[in-house]
Amino acid sequence: MTLAQALFSPRSVALVGASGDAAKNTARPQRYLKKHGYGGKVFPVNPTRQEVLGERSYPKLSAIPEAVDHAYILIEDVEQALEECGKRAVTVASIFSGGFADAGPDGARRQAKLVARARTLGVRLLGPNSMGVIDVPGRLALSVNAVLEMDALPAGTTSIVSQSGTMLGTLLSRGAARGLGFAKLVSVGNEADVGVGELVELLAGDPATRVILLFLETVRDAERLAAAARKAHAAGKPVVAYKLGRSALGEAAALSHTGALAGTDAALDAYFRDCGIVRVDMLETLLEIAPLVARRRSLDLKRPGRVTVVTTTGGGAASVVDRLGMRGVELAAPIMDLTMAASGQTYAEALQKAAQSDCDAVIACVGSSAQFHPELAVQPIIRAPKSKPLIAFFTPQADRSLALAAAEGIPAFRTPEACADAVAAFLSWRAPRKPPALAVPGNLPENPFELLAALGIAVAEWAIAEAPAFAHNIEYPVALKTLEAHKTERGGVLLGIADHAEFEKKVKKISNDRVLVQKMHSGLIEAIVGYRDDAVVGPLVLLGAGGVLTEIYRDYALRMAPVSEREAGEMIEQVRGFAAIRGYRNLPRGDLEGLARAVSALSRLALVKDRPVREADINPLIVKADGVVAVDALVAYSSDKRQEAA
Amino acid sequence: MTLAQALFSPRSVALVGASGDAAKNTARPQRYLKKHGYGGKVFPVNPTRQEVLGERSYPKLSAIPEAVDHAYILIEDVEQALEECGKRAVTVASIFSGGFADAGPDGARRQAKLVARARTLGVRLLGPNSMGVIDVPGRLALSVNAVLEMDALPAGTTSIVSQSGTMLGTLLSRGAARGLGFAKLVSVGNEADVGVGELVELLAGDPATRVILLFLETVRDAERLAAAARKAHAAGKPVVAYKLGRSALGEAAALSHTGALAGTDAALDAYFRDCGIVRVDMLETLLEIAPLVARRRSLDLKRPGRVTVVTTTGGGAASVVDRLGMRGVELAAPIMDLTMAASGQTYAEALQKAAQSDCDAVIACVGSSAQFHPELAVQPIIRAPKSKPLIAFFTPQADRSLALAAAEGIPAFRTPEACADAVAAFLSWRAPRKPPALAVPGNLPENPFELLAALGIAVAEWAIAEAPAFAHNIEYPVALKTLEAHKTERGGVLLGIADHAEFEKKVKKISNDRVLVQKMHSGLIEAIVGYRDDAVVGPLVLLGAGGVLTEIYRDYALRMAPVSEREAGEMIEQVRGFAAIRGYRNLPRGDLEGLARAVSALSRLALVKDRPVREADINPLIVKADGVVAVDALVAYSSDKRQEAA
Repeated sequence: MTLAQALFSPRSVALVGASGDAAKNTARPQRYLKKHGYGGKVFPVNPTRQEVLGERSYPKLSAIPEAVDHAYILIEDVEQALEECGKRAVTVASIFSGGFADAGPDGARRQAKLVARARTLGVRLLGPNSMGVIDVPGRLALSVNAVLEMDALPAGTTSIVSQSGTMLGTLLSRGAARGLGFAKLVSVGNEADVGVGELVELLAGDPATRVILLFLETVRDAERLAAAARKAHAAGKPVVAYKLGRSALGEAAALSHTGALAGTDAALDAYFRDCGIVRVDMLETLLEIAPLVARRRSLDLKRPGRVTVVTTTGGGAASVVDRLGMRGVELAAPIMDLTMAASGQTYAEALQKAAQSDCDAVIACVGSSAQFHPELAVQPIIRAPKSKPLIAFFTPQADRSLALAAAEGIPAFRTPEACADAVAAFLSWRAPRKPPALAVPGNLPENPFELLAALGIAVAEWAIAEAPAFAHNIEYPVALKTLEAHKTERGGVLLGIADHAEFEKKVKKISNDRVLVQKMHSGLIEAIVGYRDDAVVGPLVLLGAGGVLTEIYRDYALRMAPVSEREAGEMIEQVRGFAAIRGYRNLPRGDLEGLARAVSALSRLALVKDRPVREADINPLIVKADGVVAVDALVAYSSDKRQEAA
Repeated sequence: MTLAQALFSPRSVALVGASGDAAKNTARPQRYLKKHGYGGKVFPVNPTRQEVLGERSYPKLSAIPEAVDHAYILIEDVEQALEECGKRAVTVASIFSGGFADAGPDGARRQAKLVARARTLGVRLLGPNSMGVIDVPGRLALSVNAVLEMDALPAGTTSIVSQSGTMLGTLLSRGAARGLGFAKLVSVGNEADVGVGELVELLAGDPATRVILLFLETVRDAERLAAAARKAHAAGKPVVAYKLGRSALGEAAALSHTGALAGTDAALDAYFRDCGIVRVDMLETLLEIAPLVARRRSLDLKRPGRVTVVTTTGGGAASVVDRLGMRGVELAAPIMDLTMAASGQTYAEALQKAAQSDCDAVIACVGSSAQFHPELAVQPIIRAPKSKPLIAFFTPQADRSLALAAAEGIPAFRTPEACADAVAAFLSWRAPRKPPALAVPGNLPENPFELLAALGIAVAEWAIAEAPAFAHNIEYPVALKTLEAHKTERGGVLLGIADHAEFEKKVKKISNDRVLVQKMHSGLIEAIVGYRDDAVVGPLVLLGAGGVLTEIYRDYALRMAPVSEREAGEMIEQVRGFAAIRGYRNLPRGDLEGLARAVSALSRLALVKDRPVREADINPLIVKADGVVAVDALVAYSSDKRQEAA
């Protein structure tokens, strides 16, 4: 029995800790399995009862006389239940109980032990802290989620993997009210064993799933998820993510109850982009975008996306277009405004014309007729050409129109903001990136300047001058730096020393034994180039405007490393502060090719065997009209040794 | 009969151009007036019929045998209809017909004539291009808006003034579905005569109105609206605006069908803030915020707003908190997360505790129980203390809970984004600003440097040196500038001239007759200080980081002018690039008091009689540790004469 079968199509399930009190949370899985028509066998396990909610009950799992594919553990003594699962060769145990990584360091240790034991026993784990698994077409409702109080669950081809169990219910509930249906829904809890990545992998291979939605608070298995997202993309299954933690406050809130490591939002953005995951900004967009991406491929546009809008309400169209403009989307043609003049026919003609315009998608905006004449209002949209994506936005309360559109697989939106969010996300959707073919660096020297030179990055000429003579052969003017850590903050840097006389006078003021002497360089602008092996998403390369601009204005581009020179060129375009060297206001152009080469070269640290470098910063890298040169650098290794330049 | 009475409570209305074909738009007002129970007299005017939809009809308005308070003009020949209104002393004519300012320059001229004629005749105008007036409690449905097909309109105390007629219907429709009720709704159309400002004025004095909502595409009568908003604030009636045109694309879309002048979004932001108008970002927030601001006053917080959150779903709470964090709101206490452990009692206790925390508002987030047990779920929220604003967010589809909350006047939200938008807008709501008491400048010299000096702003010592000797008595080093326009772009600026020898050598290269000689100043940072008499909102003062930062990073603060030194100090805090002179990373502090004095001084241009200055820029203003000094300036007058420094 495979993991997928045991998770979604178990022939039998055991409910360890099933309560006989129908009002209790722990009675829910049994009630819900029955209510939604599960066809397999259900074995309640309860030490104090012979019968639970009318079903024969067993004192312990090992007393069940038949094979158990999937156990749902609802009791506190998870360890004991796991031993029982091991005894009976249960394929997968989902664990509702908390008190593990969700409950601080002690809980995390408890969880590590549990996972180790499960490996030994050959039992796979979902959770702990998981609200379970739902397979709507398969009629499996193995969950404590109260959303299952609904009488009929809407079946469809969209599957969801969620790090929040309760929000899985929210999505299902809102989808049901809109006629949006679902295939498989999984609450992953702490992801102690089965994680988001592995589930996306399974869903990529699931014939019943067409779109995969992720509700994320963090990413715990970045490499596996990336590989799974690529697999899903290859299978023509879009993966869409809504991720909390865009603000520092939200990050803290999202993680306080999971105990997971925080990834910065910018790093996760780079990561999603890298593996072709569509990211949405708003909660409802996650649901509403499914019909828009289903059966479609990424457009991989190299220019801003363009839409054409047909509307029966000028204000309604403007409310969408305004948001689209904030996301960089453009209009392919003026808004086709039929306010107070629309008939089914004029609207259909306008849609036809819109589809022929030079656009990437057509937005059909409908006013009051969507409320009072839904069939008539939605008909032209249903019949319109679908060569380009067609997206509906209904301005009034228009539940029936939304349901009609959903039934036809037409993406339809309740709010102008979610509509624009989905369209912008769709237009900027890119296929997973093919990692560039770059030379793998060999053994790299530890000294930061030598390391940069070995990667092919020009470094300002430097020498170590030692007492008593402090002799060196660097051409003046020079900079003089102590060899201590945090030298800038400690006043250990003297710039623009014009000649030997000045050097003699100053060198003894800053050191008694050794100093770094470096040729002074000046250029058009300073850049920061950084490499970081992020604990959450893996190796990243950053390019930012120099000085305090990167920090104050967050003016930087971030990508998964390594990057090719062409990709580094795209990063340069993204940094607003580089306008000055891109030919802005006739200012002299900098050596952008040289800058791109340096970014790509540093990013190759991601290719070094075992990735010993944790962080490397060139700050500043001086950009001239005819070259770039690194003036200061810092390298930190995973083993925690921090190495300042020279 | 006052305008308010004629608009909202006419004893009789004439429908000029009422159609006998019930399917036509022009038949709607008569149908809707009847359907919604209008108690006054309705006179259809139609030259070809004796009877319209069962009512006696008149060939022309002047043939109506009784007094007409309010005429709704539905025909193309608006001019003729207006003459008829004049004959019968109609108080107000609402005009549905378009073809005026909405239709280009010719239409605008037609509109100007119409307004002039209406003034002569003593008839007030609503529109043209107006979808009419609705008074829900008064049962007046004098509108072509199809939203009136609804059987029952929800009565309440929220009134709306909208520049989009169709979106007025959208708001009413969505509100009705949620149990949010309305008082008066007005579609202003082109605002040829009666505008948003005058209507807010009327609503401020309307006992049936408690909250005033504005759907705006621009502002056409900034001064009157500002005065009205102040009046409304004084009357305890919050004014809330949703304004399109946040992006350039949206601005174009919003204005293409109105022909109105565009105001930049940043200027309108400054304007709303100045007159105490709460601005929301999302369409649904405009509706949903009404119960939150009703009967409340602005908090006028001088620090970030703080909330406490109680929830039955960790993910749901995090989705709101994440957005709040992006708007600078903070948590007063950790999220009180009762996931899977909430009962009515524990939830009520948590709300009690939350209200006692050091917060400005409490957010109650409810998961699946809001869908399946709405009465139980909403009960603790209804009973909770309301000493601080209490805001509900229901994560699932929870129509009944939303309606229950609405019935109790509790602000309740459908999406985490709208919830955060409303809470952030509420927490940053400020009372209308009291204009500062500043000295009114007397006659100002035309020369920009002399003008600045007259306002009390230090200017770098300067002189005009003339051929052949180019004598001057400015201390070296100096800067040398030609007296042409656009001198910087034309290479007419030479900086850092060290001594007389260098001066002699260079002066003849840049001019044959006259040059500006100026003492060189250096400081910690450069700032831009600007004054602009904006055509839409009026006088503004801008403070930005110097160089290209203001432009590239849009790093500036904008306020209505004049500003006091204290207010200028707040502006300095808003400019991120000034971190460097605020003590960031132990960098030397700049003379922030001097900078504030200069900003306040320049802003006094708003007080000069007749406001002759259209624009004045100090770029750069050099900020030193112990003073500020203007180095270049540009002044433009309303008469269009542009004056570069000296």
